Amino acid sequence: MIKIEGMIEKTIVEAEELSNHIGKTIRIHGSIYKIRRMSDFAFVLLRAKREIVQCIYSREMTKFLLEELQEESCVIVTAYVNEESRSKKGYDLQIQDIEILSRPEDSSPIVINHKLVDASIEKLLDYRPITLRNEKERAVFKIQEGIVDGMREFLKKEKFTEIRTPKIVYAGAEGGANIFHLDYFGRDAYLAQSPQFYKQMMVGVYERVFEIAPVYRAEKHDTSRHLNEYTSIDFEMGYITGYEEIMQTETMMLQHVLQFLVNNYKPEISLLNVKLPNIKEIPAVRFIEAKELVAKEYNRNINDYDDLEPEEEKLLCKWIKKEMGSDFVFITGYPTKKRPFYAMENKENREETLSFDLLFRGVEITTGGQRIHSYQEQIRKMKQRGMEIEQFESYLMMHKYGMPPHGGLGLGLERFTSRLLEQENVRFSTLFPRDMNRLVP
Amino acid sequence: MIKIEGMIEKTIVEAEELSNHIGKTIRIHGSIYKIRRMSDFAFVLLRAKREIVQCIYSREMTKFLLEELQEESCVIVTAYVNEESRSKKGYDLQIQDIEILSRPEDSSPIVINHKLVDASIEKLLDYRPITLRNEKERAVFKIQEGIVDGMREFLKKEKFTEIRTPKIVYAGAEGGANIFHLDYFGRDAYLAQSPQFYKQMMVGVYERVFEIAPVYRAEKHDTSRHLNEYTSIDFEMGYITGYEEIMQTETMMLQHVLQFLVNNYKPEISLLNVKLPNIKEIPAVRFIEAKELVAKEYNRNINDYDDLEPEEEKLLCKWIKKEMGSDFVFITGYPTKKRPFYAMENKENREETLSFDLLFRGVEITTGGQRIHSYQEQIRKMKQRGMEIEQFESYLMMHKYGMPPHGGLGLGLERFTSRLLEQENVRFSTLFPRDMNRLVP
Repeated sequence: MIKIEGMIEKTIVEAEELSNHIGKTIRIHGSIYKIRRMSDFAFVLLRAKREIVQCIYSREMTKFLLEELQEESCVIVTAYVNEESRSKKGYDLQIQDIEILSRPEDSSPIVINHKLVDASIEKLLDYRPITLRNEKERAVFKIQEGIVDGMREFLKKEKFTEIRTPKIVYAGAEGGANIFHLDYFGRDAYLAQSPQFYKQMMVGVYERVFEIAPVYRAEKHDTSRHLNEYTSIDFEMGYITGYEEIMQTETMMLQHVLQFLVNNYKPEISLLNVKLPNIKEIPAVRFIEAKELVAKEYNRNINDYDDLEPEEEKLLCKWIKKEMGSDFVFITGYPTKKRPFYAMENKENREETLSFDLLFRGVEITTGGQRIHSYQEQIRKMKQRGMEIEQFESYLMMHKYGMPPHGGLGLGLERFTSRLLEQENVRFSTLFPRDMNRLVP
Repeated sequence: MIKIEGMIEKTIVEAEELSNHIGKTIRIHGSIYKIRRMSDFAFVLLRAKREIVQCIYSREMTKFLLEELQEESCVIVTAYVNEESRSKKGYDLQIQDIEILSRPEDSSPIVINHKLVDASIEKLLDYRPITLRNEKERAVFKIQEGIVDGMREFLKKEKFTEIRTPKIVYAGAEGGANIFHLDYFGRDAYLAQSPQFYKQMMVGVYERVFEIAPVYRAEKHDTSRHLNEYTSIDFEMGYITGYEEIMQTETMMLQHVLQFLVNNYKPEISLLNVKLPNIKEIPAVRFIEAKELVAKEYNRNINDYDDLEPEEEKLLCKWIKKEMGSDFVFITGYPTKKRPFYAMENKENREETLSFDLLFRGVEITTGGQRIHSYQEQIRKMKQRGMEIEQFESYLMMHKYGMPPHGGLGLGLERFTSRLLEQENVRFSTLFPRDMNRLVP
């Protein structure tokens, strides 16, 4: 019987620690990203965890021929860290030896080590396991990691508890037909459209909760904004004084995230040339005023008084950016008939809800608002809508046995990322997108 | 048009800040957890975000009658923070006034404010939205939050990148019939049994990755250890020198988590009387030796040479605890025929794999091991197993175009939590469990 100790002897140096080893011979591992031949030497670029490490090959320093190396081989490089003031990093890595751990079976059918992967979006996604190895492609998902970490850090600071709720559910929270159906041991089940019911229940337990998890929409929309599986960042908070508090909290969260990225993701921000928005405050326009403003400013007709068209969202953002300098805009007071049964109505005008969307650079990234907490009020509204109360018994339990005034929101992670990076398609911010036509890889 | 600023004026004091307000009148909110009448005064216990706050009601200090209060009402209490050396906290909260924000429609059909919820597991789970309001019930999921945060903190420190991969998939990673089927726009799809394929692909991108997300097993096991939807903590790392490195990394992670809980979750550890295991090192027993040891020590027959029976796992843990004082034990060298097609085999004995399980207090909580990284070796093994190579083209892409030696593991969050808390059923560590018979709430 052997014993496993909680330690690993380190014989390998990490890329970001190299400057501590000037004047020494070290070992570093990685995948050969690119071999760039010069007249009498070559650059061998290693793909490490987060950066590309440049090594210098010259025949007289090494025991092997350059021809023995192959791009996408995984290797351990033995190198001398040579002080070099002309180098950006302050040192050069002189290769002495290379141990080859693995070789590719074939060379990639798609060039991944240029600045950009030059391929159609279909090909880029078909070859995702390989194209993600491109320096810029993978940087997108480091930024995305930072967005999530920044939001989590903010929410924990504000005393939200992180929860995990089931994605196999007995009823859809958002209603409608856009829901995936599942056979669950002979019973009907669905994939969760949102954690709405559960996060509300958990407000009764912890007062403030959040969840970061996949949600599913069986929408037949094949657009640059839609995914059928995406990551929703949901929070819900009790004891609010109004739905404005949800918007204020989101504003604080976004401010925190942007600062978090500046503090922790400088290399990726620079590599992708990200223009981080500056949030001092976010304008909030009432739904109907937003419609009228866009109609007037851009000389358009209003076709639908109940909903915003994607084009209207774009134009409103354009106008807000031009007039007020903001990349974000809240839209408040959405019509009751377009909002779910749990949305709280404006007592002075039952036609509109105490809810909002947040638009960012032309696209809706958040829906939120205050929820009904009174049992009688919730029952009344469900009956008005012809819903079967019995089916929602476990949901209504929290209202029946006491709930504080509360509200919350859901933010689409991929949409937020893709607007932040000003991409043309939300799929560029999704590791392995699921859409109407794509299930692989 | 109004503008939303990133700030909220605070008029409410948080429970843990009360000691900073001695000698002052403050406002605090919460749900009335319990009213305890004494001879000439009463304790009114408020359920705040993380703690239960004790307030003192005496008629002469207040403007209202005790009878006006109701358990599970949500309230804002105005109270004087009175220095009181005899109190554990160093102060008393003297209620001056109460504003009632909401009242329950009915009183709870199940008593939730005793030390324990005295109910069958079925009733406990049927009334989950309410029973979770019990002080001890909700503490379980604060500990669970801490487990996840501790693991994430460790993995980030070790330079793992957090990823999010699809749960709607085109093929099951673990094979077998235990997989939920889905109609995906007229095509066959499945719910992911694990992020195995994707985390391996991402090793080719970031070297080290992890994911914390739901996985789905359509197993028809109705036991105290099985869930059909659970949270898997998966990590995968490249450039390993052997599968022992995965076990070492898990050992370090568990050590980190236990320390993290001690540092951050003292109130819950104390409330639930958690006996945290002490991990200096973890014994590792070879599969066949484990079987023989249990047979010999407990006078049992070996019925199945290919797998461990749950009873054998229990007895092995019992023996290890008794003889070596460890709550954990690794089992290594599982038979090839019982491990998935991507498991690397022991070159000296192809019948066994370079893989392991980790048992904790009688139950398996982790499966891990080294994976095949050579394209030819993987193809060969898949053909031996009669698998259709074409179906796995996108999975095999990474092997074809270069992969480092790598391996990883999956750890079941709910199982780990329930063993840590020494619960009789994994459902006690699941907010809203999904099993063969339970889809609600």
